[in-house]
Amino acid sequence: MDKYALLIKKIKKINLLKNVSELLEWDTDTLMPISEQKARAEQQELLAKLAHQELLSKDVTRLIKEVNPFSLSGDERCNYYETKKVWERNKNVPEELVSKIRIAVSLANASWKKAKQEKNFKLFEKDLEKIIKLKKEYASKINPKKCAYHVLFEDYEDDLSYDEAKKLIKDTYQELKELIEKAPRNEKRVFKEKISEETQKRFVEKLLKDIGFDFDKGLLAKSVHPFCAVPSFGRITTRFTEGWLPALLSTMHEGGHALYEQGLPLKHYATPLGQSKDMSVHESQSRIWENHVGRSKDFWSYQFKFLKKEYALNMSLDEFMKVLNTCKRDFIRVNADELTYVAHILVRMEIEEALIIGNLKVKDAPAKWNELYEKYLGIKPRNDAEGILQDVHWSFGGFGYFPTYSIGSIIAAQLFYFADKDLGLKKSFKKGRYDSLLMWLRNNVHKHGRKYTVQELVKKVTGEGITNKYYVAHLKERYRG
Amino acid sequence: MDKYALLIKKIKKINLLKNVSELLEWDTDTLMPISEQKARAEQQELLAKLAHQELLSKDVTRLIKEVNPFSLSGDERCNYYETKKVWERNKNVPEELVSKIRIAVSLANASWKKAKQEKNFKLFEKDLEKIIKLKKEYASKINPKKCAYHVLFEDYEDDLSYDEAKKLIKDTYQELKELIEKAPRNEKRVFKEKISEETQKRFVEKLLKDIGFDFDKGLLAKSVHPFCAVPSFGRITTRFTEGWLPALLSTMHEGGHALYEQGLPLKHYATPLGQSKDMSVHESQSRIWENHVGRSKDFWSYQFKFLKKEYALNMSLDEFMKVLNTCKRDFIRVNADELTYVAHILVRMEIEEALIIGNLKVKDAPAKWNELYEKYLGIKPRNDAEGILQDVHWSFGGFGYFPTYSIGSIIAAQLFYFADKDLGLKKSFKKGRYDSLLMWLRNNVHKHGRKYTVQELVKKVTGEGITNKYYVAHLKERYRG
Repeated sequence: MDKYALLIKKIKKINLLKNVSELLEWDTDTLMPISEQKARAEQQELLAKLAHQELLSKDVTRLIKEVNPFSLSGDERCNYYETKKVWERNKNVPEELVSKIRIAVSLANASWKKAKQEKNFKLFEKDLEKIIKLKKEYASKINPKKCAYHVLFEDYEDDLSYDEAKKLIKDTYQELKELIEKAPRNEKRVFKEKISEETQKRFVEKLLKDIGFDFDKGLLAKSVHPFCAVPSFGRITTRFTEGWLPALLSTMHEGGHALYEQGLPLKHYATPLGQSKDMSVHESQSRIWENHVGRSKDFWSYQFKFLKKEYALNMSLDEFMKVLNTCKRDFIRVNADELTYVAHILVRMEIEEALIIGNLKVKDAPAKWNELYEKYLGIKPRNDAEGILQDVHWSFGGFGYFPTYSIGSIIAAQLFYFADKDLGLKKSFKKGRYDSLLMWLRNNVHKHGRKYTVQELVKKVTGEGITNKYYVAHLKERYRG
Repeated sequence: MDKYALLIKKIKKINLLKNVSELLEWDTDTLMPISEQKARAEQQELLAKLAHQELLSKDVTRLIKEVNPFSLSGDERCNYYETKKVWERNKNVPEELVSKIRIAVSLANASWKKAKQEKNFKLFEKDLEKIIKLKKEYASKINPKKCAYHVLFEDYEDDLSYDEAKKLIKDTYQELKELIEKAPRNEKRVFKEKISEETQKRFVEKLLKDIGFDFDKGLLAKSVHPFCAVPSFGRITTRFTEGWLPALLSTMHEGGHALYEQGLPLKHYATPLGQSKDMSVHESQSRIWENHVGRSKDFWSYQFKFLKKEYALNMSLDEFMKVLNTCKRDFIRVNADELTYVAHILVRMEIEEALIIGNLKVKDAPAKWNELYEKYLGIKPRNDAEGILQDVHWSFGGFGYFPTYSIGSIIAAQLFYFADKDLGLKKSFKKGRYDSLLMWLRNNVHKHGRKYTVQELVKKVTGEGITNKYYVAHLKERYRG
């Protein structure tokens, strides 16, 4: 076997371990009995260690150095460079630190859950401090000269710099500020009909089928926090609540993530070319299906009759659309409308940056959170559960993750604009057809795996760099009245 | 860390990997979308290889040799010897062979499913040949001087020899022969009421709760073939069919397995003392709950009123009991009554022994199967799906597994006899109480983990060696008329 083939064999092994870890995560969040928690934490730690050991093994290290990229085909070279990038990034990270982070994350996740339930940040404080300390150490092993927050951001975005991302997000907020400030504070428009879980499940499964979700490659389960896992292709979860809107939107969102994973090229399975790109690209896929498809009137002008029948609703399409796209300044990010969403991200971005840099102490974070909600949204959380404890991310050490949500939305709007221009999607949506959009995404995004950087990809597809102009225009259009 | 502690740390790692593999198996058989199959096979192969590598690693090999058992406490010594036994058994098995078997098993499982569906043994023949070849090679690596079938049997029973097991099973058959021959051939007594899956699930979950199944440690899902998996404690599956009897019995059966796993001593987690014993002991636990509890009139004299209400049944307890304990000579092992069960095992035992020894060619196995069904049960399968293709075992290389079912039933009867003598269980069952039995099993079986051999354990609890006299007496009593 030549050196490249050997290296790829090793990389596949590492990715298989990561897929196993994803399956464990899936199980943890959908099924796992509480008493398995401790063993699960140990299992996850072991898998993380094994993957790290393999990446930094003598064999991989030697092969990274010995493979000659100029002897490779274009595809092979991409696989090689992407592999090298991961290796470079991790080469000075000690196995013990990987292990410590994995254990800290398991403990923090448990204490975060408890803290949120009891609306008491104190119960989470110590574990959060621990994670921040470990993540800073981790960042310093990767690049001791660079700001730790910027380094951590790169775990999710390896092309776009944090400065670029920050500018895009801040600019977007500025452009939308006036509209956001006009949004009502205590808007109570919600759906009140009680729809059983089975009925909701049947309908969202129909939606998934309609948009092209492949049930031979994935499945739908339920969990408290919806997510998409990749034990080999995309599987998703959704949440069923009394107000039945969240299930519709979160299924479209996670469905978008899964369509991306299910559309990656099979021949490159478990190698970079068969893997999804940075979080912003992933998020662009979920946002396209959630917002540009799932919140559009064109979509519902076809689907509403089925929803109405299945849920036995007594309302018109216009009434439905009004609630669907209700805009309000409220506390919970995952329930936020598209317009105010960026403000929720700004709060988190500022806080996590300050926490990592060291400008903000963990114990002062809840007050800072509330202060920033007043600043950006003009509202003040009544407790930590609807404040700083609402999101899971910091408990798993996901610092630098939040900005990718907004960058993803920005890219989604940009991609969707061009897809629509090419295809005239309104007409298809009105007929309940989404295959032309899916094909467009398959050809322009999915099939490339990790071949292009985010910026290259966006440029290649839209002819220009990442810009928020389509996003801002889309939001102004949707929320102008 | 002293050498023993180091060794235990390594053993825990190996067992964590095995637990992960069990979780993957659970997922494969309960949820997995079909397209994940290939990746799953690769993941399982990798985990098997990693566990094997770790077991035969320089460190473990050195520690096995260097730990001085005489410096250890009784518990530690047991952990050490059990570990050494596993190491000795595997030390000459090449990693490549482990890998080959794992891949062959994945392929064979797929072709077996297809063959069964199409009732065509030919579709499975080649893969079965391959597995037999590999399993013989595996046996020769463990002990080239011993009959390969005996060696394979030891994968499931490391104390009782195959000769002892065979004698027990053959003797049992002889004792029951007359009764079996009297059993009707085409008995059609079955339950015909259609009970929805949700209703069945609700009721069997109640049964599980009643017998002490801990839902904080385990859960219940559905699968085509019921099983118990151990991702850390016992989780089980059941099957919901139109005739709703199988769900009741298979839930009690798998529940028994899970109660054992859930009752193992937590302080020895992932070491031999915290693990279950040989398959026959495991099977004794499932059989106690399935047959001695779940098929007894005392049990149903309390539970039947709930069943009757929940399923809206129009029958008396006596009518229910008649169908529950219907005895017939029929084709399918998993639907067999207690009496004819041993004949089903004899067929499989003779065939797999002959296949491994080489006295029977794979292509001739279906004819042999039918011939033996005529011999032992006086019936002839109409096709391979109700004949040789009915069981999954050979597709996963489980040669030597079948005999443990009957040995388990024999031990179950022996244990139950003494439990009943100690506790007077009739009275408790009639009041819907099972805790005294569970406590008895916890104290006499579960809490010991792998401390005693099967024969030691049975001797310790019942004062005599393994004997079929209680089993035969139980069956003669139950099926005499």
